[in-house]
Amino acid sequence: MRIAVDAVGGDHGPQTVIPGAVEGARRFGVDLVLVGPEAELRRILATTDTTGVTVEVVNAPDTIAMDESPAQAVRRKPDADINVALRLVKDGRADAMVSCGNSGAVMAAALLNLGRTPGIDRPAIASPLPSARGRTLVLDLGAVTDPKPLNLVQFARMGVIFSQRALGIPHPTVGLLSNGEEPGKGNQLVQETYELLKAEPDLNFHGNVEGRDVPRGIVDVVVTDGFTGNVLLKVAEGAASFVGEIIREEITATFVRKLAAGFLKPAFRRAKERIDYAETGGALLLGVNGVTVIAHGRSNERAIANAVGVAARAAEAMVPQAIAAAIDSARAKVA
Amino acid sequence: MRIAVDAVGGDHGPQTVIPGAVEGARRFGVDLVLVGPEAELRRILATTDTTGVTVEVVNAPDTIAMDESPAQAVRRKPDADINVALRLVKDGRADAMVSCGNSGAVMAAALLNLGRTPGIDRPAIASPLPSARGRTLVLDLGAVTDPKPLNLVQFARMGVIFSQRALGIPHPTVGLLSNGEEPGKGNQLVQETYELLKAEPDLNFHGNVEGRDVPRGIVDVVVTDGFTGNVLLKVAEGAASFVGEIIREEITATFVRKLAAGFLKPAFRRAKERIDYAETGGALLLGVNGVTVIAHGRSNERAIANAVGVAARAAEAMVPQAIAAAIDSARAKVA
Repeated sequence: MRIAVDAVGGDHGPQTVIPGAVEGARRFGVDLVLVGPEAELRRILATTDTTGVTVEVVNAPDTIAMDESPAQAVRRKPDADINVALRLVKDGRADAMVSCGNSGAVMAAALLNLGRTPGIDRPAIASPLPSARGRTLVLDLGAVTDPKPLNLVQFARMGVIFSQRALGIPHPTVGLLSNGEEPGKGNQLVQETYELLKAEPDLNFHGNVEGRDVPRGIVDVVVTDGFTGNVLLKVAEGAASFVGEIIREEITATFVRKLAAGFLKPAFRRAKERIDYAETGGALLLGVNGVTVIAHGRSNERAIANAVGVAARAAEAMVPQAIAAAIDSARAKVA
Repeated sequence: MRIAVDAVGGDHGPQTVIPGAVEGARRFGVDLVLVGPEAELRRILATTDTTGVTVEVVNAPDTIAMDESPAQAVRRKPDADINVALRLVKDGRADAMVSCGNSGAVMAAALLNLGRTPGIDRPAIASPLPSARGRTLVLDLGAVTDPKPLNLVQFARMGVIFSQRALGIPHPTVGLLSNGEEPGKGNQLVQETYELLKAEPDLNFHGNVEGRDVPRGIVDVVVTDGFTGNVLLKVAEGAASFVGEIIREEITATFVRKLAAGFLKPAFRRAKERIDYAETGGALLLGVNGVTVIAHGRSNERAIANAVGVAARAAEAMVPQAIAAAIDSARAKVA
């Protein structure tokens, strides 16, 4: 198993991405292909402990800046890091790719280099978010801001297959994110999608779910448009760190409290691990012909390492192939 | 100052609403008008300590069930609790009303009995949510699930006036909730609204804000559609209680931790107060001709008491009148 990692993207650059990727490759037992400006990558690699890890470097002289139009830039710069990394996947020289660059650019490059899965009109960004019952897969987290009801139905199907193949959930339940549980609640998009999902054969549709049901984890897959999904993800992240911050302030407000809090350090560390949104490591772009993992721009080394794990698991589970096969068989049934 | 309280609505019923309302009236120094089935209300009042509080009971024999269509039910049942309470406001017999009933029904009843503020096309539900810098006013939290850009501009104006008059912020900054900070980010609605807000004179428009910026509190007023706002509110609530639950589990996992955690009880209690979404007590329905407070269906006594405070403050600040005057003067400028 070989994972291509775009070493340039992300807020922290190759100094963070390279050690994180090497750590991930070691932990998950995969080979690594680092993509970026070769000289710089080799310089950082020289100071990184790569014992036991097979690392290849593939030169990509160009890069896409945050302020460029993603769709135009990926076409104008064939040798940009993301394009080069995705071509490795396309050509079978890597089994998956990981980038913490601009998610719009990664998506545009994946569509350009890998192409859409037949039967999927728009790809979606999916990530399992921490919840009281383990993880809840939420999609779309930002790929399509104004989807049609049919897109959401395809998201539901892709989420189910991802949950089955990569998360080991045999019969995933699906919830439609809304502003109330009752059927009939929701904006126009949700109301129309509800009827379509209800009519889907073989779909374990639970009905509408509310925002609070995501951290509660009452369904396995939550489907929503990319605008709302993105807001949801960032509100959950923001609220979690806000709560952590307030608690930290209060438990260190007096000498006695500080003393008592000292005994609880391992407990807080463990709680943080259970809640940390960086732990998931990366979101999967579903609906393209190849495993593409979009990691958080602010990913630290541990998040990058986890993203390599997400990529390896999805490639091993052959998620893109499973989606293509499922969509194909659903279409055959209709025909 | 007299506050009419719908004593029937809410998950816990009059047993919770009445003591909460009495406590609120005492704390905020207002008179109370309890609305509902008179005999039952008097029976509960008889066992409630009302020392120092002026309480009147107004009979409302009818009520609106959760499963009724709000718009139809409020028209079909003129003597339903919400209608009776809002007529008291309309007739000047109360200065504001509080209900923790079905928010759709409260909204429909407010439109029916009080009417829309001239110049406001759709009302919005607004509430100051806990944030790292105090409170961030978010609207709309669920009144209009598919608004037009112009509605959001009116929400922004109403939010600014509410912040100035009731929250004491002289020059509130306004953010537009989006899936990225950069101009051009957002769904169709947000992109169009961005241009309108940018062109608004006298509006302290900060630009797009992301989901995490709400708990961070980087602007005073966050404007969004009622669908996304409702998801945001419930995700934030859900994530906050999820984090609290995980921390509780971890700090009570061993004997030593339990012992240490015992010393931190006051710290956790204080943290909970700072974060608790029930503390705000109620959301204001802005854009109708009278102060209407929609409290959470699950409101406990403290939340009801706070909702009475929210109502009293909004009535004292004459928020509906201030909104009407500001909209009128903005229209005069254009003409």
